Amino acid sequence: MEEKTVVILGVTGSIGTQTVDVIKALKGFKVVGISFGRNVSLAEKIIDELGVKYYVSEREASKGVKIETLEELFSITEPDIVVCAIPGFEGVKAALESLKHTKRLALATKEALVCAGPFVKQLAEKYSVEIIPIDSEHSAIFQLYEPHIDHVLITASGGAVRDVPLDDIPSLTPAQILKHPTWSMGGRITVDSATMVNKLFEVIEAHELFNLDYSKIDVKLNRSSFVHGIVFLKDGVIKIHAGKPDMRIPIAYSLTYPERIYESCIADVKEFDLSLYNVEEERYPIFHYGLELARTQSGLSWRIALNASDEIAVEYFLREKITFRQIETVVKRTVDYVIEADKSVESINDVYEIDNISRNYAAKVVKELLSK
Amino acid sequence: MEEKTVVILGVTGSIGTQTVDVIKALKGFKVVGISFGRNVSLAEKIIDELGVKYYVSEREASKGVKIETLEELFSITEPDIVVCAIPGFEGVKAALESLKHTKRLALATKEALVCAGPFVKQLAEKYSVEIIPIDSEHSAIFQLYEPHIDHVLITASGGAVRDVPLDDIPSLTPAQILKHPTWSMGGRITVDSATMVNKLFEVIEAHELFNLDYSKIDVKLNRSSFVHGIVFLKDGVIKIHAGKPDMRIPIAYSLTYPERIYESCIADVKEFDLSLYNVEEERYPIFHYGLELARTQSGLSWRIALNASDEIAVEYFLREKITFRQIETVVKRTVDYVIEADKSVESINDVYEIDNISRNYAAKVVKELLSK
Repeated sequence: MEEKTVVILGVTGSIGTQTVDVIKALKGFKVVGISFGRNVSLAEKIIDELGVKYYVSEREASKGVKIETLEELFSITEPDIVVCAIPGFEGVKAALESLKHTKRLALATKEALVCAGPFVKQLAEKYSVEIIPIDSEHSAIFQLYEPHIDHVLITASGGAVRDVPLDDIPSLTPAQILKHPTWSMGGRITVDSATMVNKLFEVIEAHELFNLDYSKIDVKLNRSSFVHGIVFLKDGVIKIHAGKPDMRIPIAYSLTYPERIYESCIADVKEFDLSLYNVEEERYPIFHYGLELARTQSGLSWRIALNASDEIAVEYFLREKITFRQIETVVKRTVDYVIEADKSVESINDVYEIDNISRNYAAKVVKELLSK
Repeated sequence: MEEKTVVILGVTGSIGTQTVDVIKALKGFKVVGISFGRNVSLAEKIIDELGVKYYVSEREASKGVKIETLEELFSITEPDIVVCAIPGFEGVKAALESLKHTKRLALATKEALVCAGPFVKQLAEKYSVEIIPIDSEHSAIFQLYEPHIDHVLITASGGAVRDVPLDDIPSLTPAQILKHPTWSMGGRITVDSATMVNKLFEVIEAHELFNLDYSKIDVKLNRSSFVHGIVFLKDGVIKIHAGKPDMRIPIAYSLTYPERIYESCIADVKEFDLSLYNVEEERYPIFHYGLELARTQSGLSWRIALNASDEIAVEYFLREKITFRQIETVVKRTVDYVIEADKSVESINDVYEIDNISRNYAAKVVKELLSK
């Protein structure tokens, strides 16, 4: 395989650093550019280790050449692959920008498809860019996908609340919520695992990635996160994708696809936990609320509002300003408000605008809750 | 898809009739020839229903044109696909013959690869014939197969003896053994499920079909036969092939591959029984005996001897002449004799010769047992 050039966006985050691990383990990939947020010392270490030439950040690194914008970084490097692992809405712009300058978008940023799915897909088609999902569930479906599909199933761990008595859930602290049973991930995504907003986003992503109707995407709990995804084919064949929960495996696949080169340890049959459980409605109310919207609402505005308000609410929850259950209040009130406003999303600018409106409204709801 | 011509060998057996079912359900396949054994009335019905022109049989049908040999049948029809579902050693010759006259061999006859694997593969390569397995386990592995494989796992139901107290097994009657818990199949294969000789053959077939070392083929019990096969990839990904036990699904796939066209009912998650158990050594002694030979013996002679002696022993068992446990005696004594004789297999004729020697020896062992 010819050496492929890679730009990693959000290189100091959980997916970013694991991408660095994978690239060090694999041969044939050269990181030509990175972006990072606050962790300058880690970024400098990565620049050094991988011999990265260019970086984009609001901060200054003592190594590498600083580039002002992602747009410029992409223009200079024209990388074979962009790994987009910037968390939150910021990742949407980055993903959209990257599509004009690469052959493959290895996508971890959920918000790109959740908030701007149709635009991402339009640009990908226009510039002939492959979108390869990094999320373990979507990577699973991607790896199993074939025509003649009846429906798919993605799994959820159930997060930190799965075994907590229902009455105790509303008052769980950030420290309790951040203890994820199976995956080691960033802060917001770990809270989103407990609310299953994360899984709701994955349902939306699956809908966009595989052009599947929402009625064709099932979600079940698998406590060990050993099962990632299942494809049910029309002839009765069921294909299940399983393995230890380790993000480096789908990251590697997103880089090497259609080949599989990465090596990792192989689970023993003794470790198989393939049991699947229903997602309780009372335990995961935002998830079920969102699924209902997915089935009944057309358009993007509710999705943008849900993401924006969740981002705000989780931030306040992690700062111990609002309770765990108040995340739901903030999200629902904001989404209901935006649905009521009935704004259609015709352009990428509309996405940004509704995101902005939603954030402001969510902040207002938080303020109200705080003043009580 | 252009209409494809098919010859079905062993059309009145379990796989044969299910192939007829599938072809009636699918579009685009024309059965141009069949072979059958004793069931003339069923053969006549099939000839009629599918408008089959030619048949090969030792018996006379009132419809269709009788052809003397399979060789002739293949020459006349030159079919796109041959479905080889003749049970027993007889199927070996038929499979080998077919390879000179078709583009695809949809293979159900286990004996072809067990007794003559290298010859089947040589001819398939010489005449550019695809071999598509019909067995549910091999179809599963075939469907999941990709390079970068670490090892595979095929499942066994455990047959009729799986829940019987160990001490009661030796004296089980044919009627008890023929009650297969999950699959509906022919007589010999149902007995072979109880001894797991069937599964031993499948290990050998997987070794031949996928060029896998025996150490790379694992076998576990799955009580429901819901899991058919598992592929463990080197990057840690595990792909599991599951679904209701229904042979029409892999039969259809063997016809339509690489497309998937057939439609069947889709199992619900509630029906999932994915639990895997070890294969007890005391319960399935011939299986473990054979696995040990697979790992230590090179050459085909022990495989031919095992098949031949098992065929003889099962026949006498089904006629209630020998006990269930005596199948093991007949098989082991014959195989040990043939290994001792140390005959190498250089040609297809050697295969037939060792088969013959083994049958005679097995019959002699049976006679000895009867005279006691």
